[in-house]
Amino acid sequence: MEDQAQQEQASPEVQKRIQASFDRQGLMSHLDARITHIAPGRVRIELPSRPEVTQQHGYFHAGATSAIADSAGGYAAYTLFPEDSDVLTVEYKINLLAPAVGDHIEAVGTVLKSGRTLTVCQLEVFGVRDDGERKLVANGQQTLIRVDRPGG
Amino acid sequence: MEDQAQQEQASPEVQKRIQASFDRQGLMSHLDARITHIAPGRVRIELPSRPEVTQQHGYFHAGATSAIADSAGGYAAYTLFPEDSDVLTVEYKINLLAPAVGDHIEAVGTVLKSGRTLTVCQLEVFGVRDDGERKLVANGQQTLIRVDRPGG
Amino acid sequence: MEDQAQQEQASPEVQKRIQASFDRQGLMSHLDARITHIAPGRVRIELPSRPEVTQQHGYFHAGATSAIADSAGGYAAYTLFPEDSDVLTVEYKINLLAPAVGDHIEAVGTVLKSGRTLTVCQLEVFGVRDDGERKLVANGQQTLIRVDRPGG
Amino acid sequence: MEDQAQQEQASPEVQKRIQASFDRQGLMSHLDARITHIAPGRVRIELPSRPEVTQQHGYFHAGATSAIADSAGGYAAYTLFPEDSDVLTVEYKINLLAPAVGDHIEAVGTVLKSGRTLTVCQLEVFGVRDDGERKLVANGQQTLIRVDRPGG
Repeated sequence: MEDQAQQEQASPEVQKRIQASFDRQGLMSHLDARITHIAPGRVRIELPSRPEVTQQHGYFHAGATSAIADSAGGYAAYTLFPEDSDVLTVEYKINLLAPAVGDHIEAVGTVLKSGRTLTVCQLEVFGVRDDGERKLVANGQQTLIRVDRPGG
Repeated sequence: MEDQAQQEQASPEVQKRIQASFDRQGLMSHLDARITHIAPGRVRIELPSRPEVTQQHGYFHAGATSAIADSAGGYAAYTLFPEDSDVLTVEYKINLLAPAVGDHIEAVGTVLKSGRTLTVCQLEVFGVRDDGERKLVANGQQTLIRVDRPGG
Repeated sequence: MEDQAQQEQASPEVQKRIQASFDRQGLMSHLDARITHIAPGRVRIELPSRPEVTQQHGYFHAGATSAIADSAGGYAAYTLFPEDSDVLTVEYKINLLAPAVGDHIEAVGTVLKSGRTLTVCQLEVFGVRDDGERKLVANGQQTLIRVDRPGG
Repeated sequence: MEDQAQQEQASPEVQKRIQASFDRQGLMSHLDARITHIAPGRVRIELPSRPEVTQQHGYFHAGATSAIADSAGGYAAYTLFPEDSDVLTVEYKINLLAPAVGDHIEAVGTVLKSGRTLTVCQLEVFGVRDDGERKLVANGQQTLIRVDRPGG
């Protein structure tokens, strides 16, 4: 899966549409997050370690972990939607499996089930060190809804 | 409940302990969030509307909504813990009920069940306008674990 | 809330529609569950204690607890739907707060947010003794979708 | 993964301990569920299609789906616990991805993270036809706690 996902890329149109939407998310740029991979049904977002994203012990705050996980899942769903539609998060659940430490964290959103109205994604967040060590720090599940864009 | 919670206050020691921990959460100050009420088993956190906390449509990002909800629940649990302990989020689930709009959002974490090891909180987030209009925009449920502080 | 809910009743048509649907749920009759109250946006289901619904320690099995919670939430949503529609559970999350013991358990499903497509319910399950003692044993949150009935 | 899991088996002691616990779950035998595989960190439970496990449309009831998913996850965690301990479900979340149809359904519980106190499992439920067709109908995530058995 991993290798396949690395090779696969969404179409240039889809990548452009998602990058443009991501760039409008004030929170993502305020956190210094960036999209690193856009494949059909799978999107990765990275967040570098900085004091601005910590909780009281200096780990990544669950809110920061969740924020990039939510966006990764949302855009993973969005890769499979038609152009004149939009995506909203209905709900998600996330387990914080281990202290989120590392030089950066990486959220991977993967579509589990894509329906006409609802999409379900798996959310994974890894703590990654610059030496390449990589550990699953959070795992979740998310439900999204496709909405038609007014005037879309 | 609401009126009672407004009047009730945690002890000065508990308030101080929680405010100090909150002040160490780099994410909270980076988002400009602040604790507005600390009662036994209930904590409120406010987040003002700013471009830095938005998603692609200009609403509060689900990640920002979740971040203050997670912290509110965590500190609500923490008000009931002994001094030499600490709190970690095990997991949470949140439904985004309506677009999170308003002059600020307010997260309310309330302890539903406080056990020896685990605590379960209800999470609510309201969109609040300066004219006082207040609307539930997210509702969730959170599990937390109490850990003894090394050398605490 | 409690007293109000006791007095309020859904219209006879809605009650009849829901009772008829409930009677078609083979699992509910196999477990010996029954609907005890149908109010607009709120439904209660009871399950008597029997060896047939236990887990390995003799408590109510989380699966039994969840089954009546899921049905209570589904029918609570359904009370607010038009006649030619149907309801499906999208997802739910439930915390098992305490061992589910008692002469019976009672699930209460309450609509938190009723939208055009999606409805979100709160799920509560109480362990109830014949002497009237009543304890919250599970608390959850559920998302449901309204679907138009083919030929409805 | 699939093939590996088929070959792997938990030790005879673990298998015996889990089968004995399962046999004490009144709900599982009342539903006619049975354990079909016990591997370290992974357990499978099957439930045959019968009118006694349906919802109002004749599909498997979400409560039945959840019941075997919860038990599969609980026993998957339990395979990794010492003998004198016990397992309790803290909470779970499940998405019902598709109508649960088939000659039987099969729940697979898989340990994602095994900690000293808490274990997190992935829950999957498949609708399976006698001709071998197999479809994911539910996907979930579960948190469990290890408790020392009194006198264990």
